[in-house]
Amino acid sequence: MSGLPDLAAVRKLDDADPLKTLRNRFRLPETLIYLDGNSLGALPIASAQSVLEAIERQWGNNLIGGWTKDDWIGASRRVGSMIAPLIGAQAHEVVVADSTSVNLFKLIVAALQARTGRSTVLTEPGNFPTDVYIAGGVTRLGQGHHLHKVPADEIVESIDEDVAVVVLTHVHYRTGRKLDMAAITAAAHAKGALIIWDLCHSAGAIEVDLHACDADLAVGCGYKYLNGGPGAPAFLFVAERLHATLQSPLTGWMGHQAPFDFSDDYVPARGIDRFLCGTPPILGIAALEQGVATFDQVNMKSLAAKSESLFSLLLEWVEASCGEHGFELITPRDASTRGSHISFNHEHAFPICQALIARCVVGDFRAPNTLRLGLTPLYTRFEDVWRAVVTLEEIMSERKWDKDEYRKRGRVT
Amino acid sequence: MSGLPDLAAVRKLDDADPLKTLRNRFRLPETLIYLDGNSLGALPIASAQSVLEAIERQWGNNLIGGWTKDDWIGASRRVGSMIAPLIGAQAHEVVVADSTSVNLFKLIVAALQARTGRSTVLTEPGNFPTDVYIAGGVTRLGQGHHLHKVPADEIVESIDEDVAVVVLTHVHYRTGRKLDMAAITAAAHAKGALIIWDLCHSAGAIEVDLHACDADLAVGCGYKYLNGGPGAPAFLFVAERLHATLQSPLTGWMGHQAPFDFSDDYVPARGIDRFLCGTPPILGIAALEQGVATFDQVNMKSLAAKSESLFSLLLEWVEASCGEHGFELITPRDASTRGSHISFNHEHAFPICQALIARCVVGDFRAPNTLRLGLTPLYTRFEDVWRAVVTLEEIMSERKWDKDEYRKRGRVT
Repeated sequence: MSGLPDLAAVRKLDDADPLKTLRNRFRLPETLIYLDGNSLGALPIASAQSVLEAIERQWGNNLIGGWTKDDWIGASRRVGSMIAPLIGAQAHEVVVADSTSVNLFKLIVAALQARTGRSTVLTEPGNFPTDVYIAGGVTRLGQGHHLHKVPADEIVESIDEDVAVVVLTHVHYRTGRKLDMAAITAAAHAKGALIIWDLCHSAGAIEVDLHACDADLAVGCGYKYLNGGPGAPAFLFVAERLHATLQSPLTGWMGHQAPFDFSDDYVPARGIDRFLCGTPPILGIAALEQGVATFDQVNMKSLAAKSESLFSLLLEWVEASCGEHGFELITPRDASTRGSHISFNHEHAFPICQALIARCVVGDFRAPNTLRLGLTPLYTRFEDVWRAVVTLEEIMSERKWDKDEYRKRGRVT
Repeated sequence: MSGLPDLAAVRKLDDADPLKTLRNRFRLPETLIYLDGNSLGALPIASAQSVLEAIERQWGNNLIGGWTKDDWIGASRRVGSMIAPLIGAQAHEVVVADSTSVNLFKLIVAALQARTGRSTVLTEPGNFPTDVYIAGGVTRLGQGHHLHKVPADEIVESIDEDVAVVVLTHVHYRTGRKLDMAAITAAAHAKGALIIWDLCHSAGAIEVDLHACDADLAVGCGYKYLNGGPGAPAFLFVAERLHATLQSPLTGWMGHQAPFDFSDDYVPARGIDRFLCGTPPILGIAALEQGVATFDQVNMKSLAAKSESLFSLLLEWVEASCGEHGFELITPRDASTRGSHISFNHEHAFPICQALIARCVVGDFRAPNTLRLGLTPLYTRFEDVWRAVVTLEEIMSERKWDKDEYRKRGRVT
């Protein structure tokens, strides 16, 4: 364990951590070192009771009356407004609905319809697959649009008058690199293009300020740093200045101005509700509400500072103890240009990841060769990071990754 | 209570009902007469425990490992295959995903792309709003399609070579009228059109045999007769013969042939999975699984027979006791042409519905003047129907609907 401090010293860091009590909001298995909250957030203590209440008292006792008595009808807006402060949005600009993929579709099509005469959707190659796939699907609708992919560093110079909308993920799911939201948004606006930010790996992990960046549109995931549970409903953001002009192509009844008039004519709701589609998933929203509530009274600046410390120490310790084992850091070192996970490429990343999991250190693998470790400052301790590195060093120095039997892969981002 | 049998006689009907024990699969409030299972199904006894297990053991203990250990990744297919026998489909032709609205969008666009050169989407006016709205949204994508609405009785003669796809609800949400799936499907096919059946008010309520009717495509709701809970995920059906040619426009990563390869190129999955989009909503699917499981070992023919008896008696009793109170039956009397709810128009339908609810008889109101009572043969008793009619007669004969204070409306289909 050359180059690592001893556990007592690390525990002092945890003792001194002003955010240390936040971990008590979660139920984490005792023996697990969970570094995959960027893929699926941990279970908040309050979630089970809240969903049980939605099932037993609301659904069971109130039945159809739950739509009014328990304000199910307002749930999408209520939880959206709780997410808003985490991303620098106003409460009425965010709504919970559908999945990230479906929300991307809504916003890309809406943006294209607001920029008629332009034919390009711009993104980067290697963006999260669903972003690329959904954008591709939109261009196959037969409206003459095409998807153009250029590396992130060439995005700004590639935005021209033919670009209708730029679709980028703020923090890259694989590398952890964070793009310059303000600069790229400004570049898009300078050419008259709209921009959609995918906040899946940002919301709840780092400071995000959509308004300070004058962002137009955004989507994000409920089940990563927002701790909403597996397959939690997603959210979307539309800047207020665009509410009147943009329209969702998914004109479901919940986006209607008066859904219970049951008229044949579609009139979109005036505000963000026009981006709703079907009946809201109440049980999923109940869980997400508690997930988002884990951020109550939490200052995002403090959270980001802790994420930075966790990252720095993890990197320092990996370099000190595993420096000769062939890990290539692919996450930017500079805290201002990264999110809250750290990724290494390694030719044996898959068996190494499996060997870690077999020893109760849960990170994840991204094909073909990336080992990804998520740092979720609400509940990751310095001790967790230290133990993860100790375990990694042991796996590498004794080539345990080459000796273990490991299961086939199959896990979700 | 002129013209009604006495309660003892009605209870004998319940005692003799071969399906009477099915009600034990649900937790219904003692004092409530719930005739709104066509809007939101009742709570199955097993649901709370099942969702709690998904939250506490699967999510809480297994965290990201749940995707494989608890087969979250297979949940959409698993529950889809449970729904299949209820609608006359093969197990691999049904999948649980998204909302009815989103699924309609996928299938309408897929159908249009499979019928290039045709420009018409055909539906009926007064179809459930989200069906009309979604179809309208598709025609506004700028591909030169238009939505044509003709009354149900004129649908067959209106299908011509310009119709790409016919979108109809099998059982009408308001009138309860059931369309002739076999005849209309055959008429569509005769002109080379595809057909999409919305089964929201059919699945789990009446016998549905998509294959016997040679149906192409279908969607349906999880939260009505399937008892999946408020805003439960929906399902969709694509006949196997269309799996290779139809493609969803919502090309999210879960519809990819190999989502975990994280490649930039979209290759649709070979089977029904290509109609998946985003990450599946695991908690919602866990509840839906128990909802669908309430049909275990239940013969749909027996269920339909009970629905018919409930309907006949309700109608007979309303006509006997409330004949002079101005209710106009808008549901077909012939059992072969209706679903499992009964609807009356009445100029005071709204306050009458509120007066019923105030007396613990829960039906619902559909603007502008429809009172709708759902008969859910899994748990509706003859006694429930009798008590509902007794209460209705009291409300009408004493004009209680005109005296009550009632709340403003605001409930969901």
